[in-house]
Amino acid sequence: MSIYDKALTMHEAWKGKLEVQAKARVDNAEALSIAYTPGVAEPCKVISQNKEKVYTYTMKGNTVAIVSDGTAVLGLGNIGPEAAMPVMEGKAVLFKEFADINAIPICLDTTDVDEIVKTVRYLSPTFGGINLEDISAPRCFEIESKLKEQLSIPVFHDDQHGTAIVVLAGIINALKIVKKNKEKCKIVINGAGSAGIAIAQLLLHEGFKHLVLCDKQGILNQDASWLNWAQKQMASLTNPNHISGTLKHAMVNSDIFIGVSAPNIVTESMIQSMNQDSIVFAMANPVPEIMPDLAKKAGARIVGTGRSDFPNQVNNVLAFPGIFKGALEGRAVTITKDMMIAAAHAIAGVVDQKQLHENMILPKPFNPAIAHCVANAVKSCI
Amino acid sequence: MSIYDKALTMHEAWKGKLEVQAKARVDNAEALSIAYTPGVAEPCKVISQNKEKVYTYTMKGNTVAIVSDGTAVLGLGNIGPEAAMPVMEGKAVLFKEFADINAIPICLDTTDVDEIVKTVRYLSPTFGGINLEDISAPRCFEIESKLKEQLSIPVFHDDQHGTAIVVLAGIINALKIVKKNKEKCKIVINGAGSAGIAIAQLLLHEGFKHLVLCDKQGILNQDASWLNWAQKQMASLTNPNHISGTLKHAMVNSDIFIGVSAPNIVTESMIQSMNQDSIVFAMANPVPEIMPDLAKKAGARIVGTGRSDFPNQVNNVLAFPGIFKGALEGRAVTITKDMMIAAAHAIAGVVDQKQLHENMILPKPFNPAIAHCVANAVKSCI
Repeated sequence: MSIYDKALTMHEAWKGKLEVQAKARVDNAEALSIAYTPGVAEPCKVISQNKEKVYTYTMKGNTVAIVSDGTAVLGLGNIGPEAAMPVMEGKAVLFKEFADINAIPICLDTTDVDEIVKTVRYLSPTFGGINLEDISAPRCFEIESKLKEQLSIPVFHDDQHGTAIVVLAGIINALKIVKKNKEKCKIVINGAGSAGIAIAQLLLHEGFKHLVLCDKQGILNQDASWLNWAQKQMASLTNPNHISGTLKHAMVNSDIFIGVSAPNIVTESMIQSMNQDSIVFAMANPVPEIMPDLAKKAGARIVGTGRSDFPNQVNNVLAFPGIFKGALEGRAVTITKDMMIAAAHAIAGVVDQKQLHENMILPKPFNPAIAHCVANAVKSCI
Repeated sequence: MSIYDKALTMHEAWKGKLEVQAKARVDNAEALSIAYTPGVAEPCKVISQNKEKVYTYTMKGNTVAIVSDGTAVLGLGNIGPEAAMPVMEGKAVLFKEFADINAIPICLDTTDVDEIVKTVRYLSPTFGGINLEDISAPRCFEIESKLKEQLSIPVFHDDQHGTAIVVLAGIINALKIVKKNKEKCKIVINGAGSAGIAIAQLLLHEGFKHLVLCDKQGILNQDASWLNWAQKQMASLTNPNHISGTLKHAMVNSDIFIGVSAPNIVTESMIQSMNQDSIVFAMANPVPEIMPDLAKKAGARIVGTGRSDFPNQVNNVLAFPGIFKGALEGRAVTITKDMMIAAAHAIAGVVDQKQLHENMILPKPFNPAIAHCVANAVKSCI
């Protein structure tokens, strides 16, 4: 049976990959009167006097809403909120298993930016943090930035920042192997959507200088007419030599290629045109921009993908559980770029010098140390 | 230690009376690729073709949102959404323990009727049913009726209908003991808020003819100037003799008193003024309208309260778990008055003829048969 058939069979058997469990007993009159009426009035009264106490007496402090409108689900696109549910439940399973956080899927029947922002704001008393998921660009940028402005709990769009953090972790380790200096590296990012733009922003924040972003229509520069507002902003922050043209042009003499775009759009000759000791992260899923063996054959020194069946899997699960664990435990009111940078270094640091190898630049996701290291890194920035 | 001190200590130890548990494993690469990417894409695709399949592949069909705005919490009033959280978590524990339903507290940071309606509508792809809780009257009527109009999943305001169902169940059994006919019974309901109005509506639907509703300002009749729109509507459906005056007047020669109002407002002489074999449900919490021993001493034949330390506890937990269990299992699109009536008879029927007694008109809440009986009754109406 294929993975896909197995997935369908198992999802039907599960009828939901999550369940709610009661920690409080209510099987006799006294237990009922402690967990529910009349005893429950006591914590209610205390919280009504001091809202902060909601963190002491309720699940809020360890509970995250996974909010999606179903507009950019996996590679499937705008499939709607109901069809997004299996992904959000899966994400919640990861939150639980990797960081012991309660996560609740919230799939919304609206795609309007302001309505989503308002809805999440209304929901915020219940949750300790908001994980935005699978919301299409450039709407996701606006939603996240408005929510960050309006809420005093952490808001994190994983498709952007989770990906960016793990990519940066991989690059940090890859550069140790190829012994290149970050200030001098020429980086090409293909795919100027949520992930591509967030990766570019995080790399700039980390001190990388020479970035070029591409999308379907070619290189992002300030004269291009096809840019949305988020891409326009990025065009002004990247592409220092004001080049134009196609991805092919951009890749000539580059050191690092980062693909968050489409299958099979990078050729062997494009890899050959890169500088020596090139690093290629081809993360389109399930079929990457170029298959790892082809990229290697064409001269790439280090290759990563989004797939678990090749070395160097760039997998968001390395980041988001620890990010939220740290933010919730430390009662962060927001998640900053500095926290993301610290998280990337923490992930890179899980692979120790002795293990570090072209085919081992990122830790395997099942290493339970990761979430702890990332959480501590985040907390150190609060 | 008092119940209240114990409640505070335990709530601090629990830090939330609920937790999310994963049913799917993600502890190796294959398990991860079945529960999450890439396998999860398969149920997503199927649901995107046919939304109904969300009931096959996700938790929606067994998951209820417990929605509150914190405006009418227990007897505490408008204490806000954060302070309402312990109650909603407690309710979720009851959903789990009595009906194996996943229930999620959703405490909203808005008290605007239309905003609440819109928010719940946006949330509806995720949930199989909506339990409204602790929302003040008359806003709760408008919110419920708009949601019932707009959603095709069951919506149920427990403070109204849960209470009404259990009260009706108690009256059905009490009338068997006192051998009075429902058409001839004179009923006085004190408290014309969400519970009082819902009780009146359900009793009318069951065929009771002679109802008088009172509130702080006295008897509801069509000439009263102080009525809100919901009370005005009830004034036209009740009070067949168009009487006016105070609760004291209303109670003279009545057969049944139902209090959902305030402590200690019914005197012994008011009970004495009722007909022989009177039935008194004094449900103000924690201090009833009249203490059961006083009511008995004054001549009441059957007395019920909201408290677990007296006989005949009128407890919503007898109704809502089974109501939702039946509605979810039967995939009801709404919860009708007929379902509520059937549920009341099912609850009454759990107390068999041999057990039936003045001090045993309702089953104890810990009887696991109740939710099954209620669910079956609900399903028989779909």
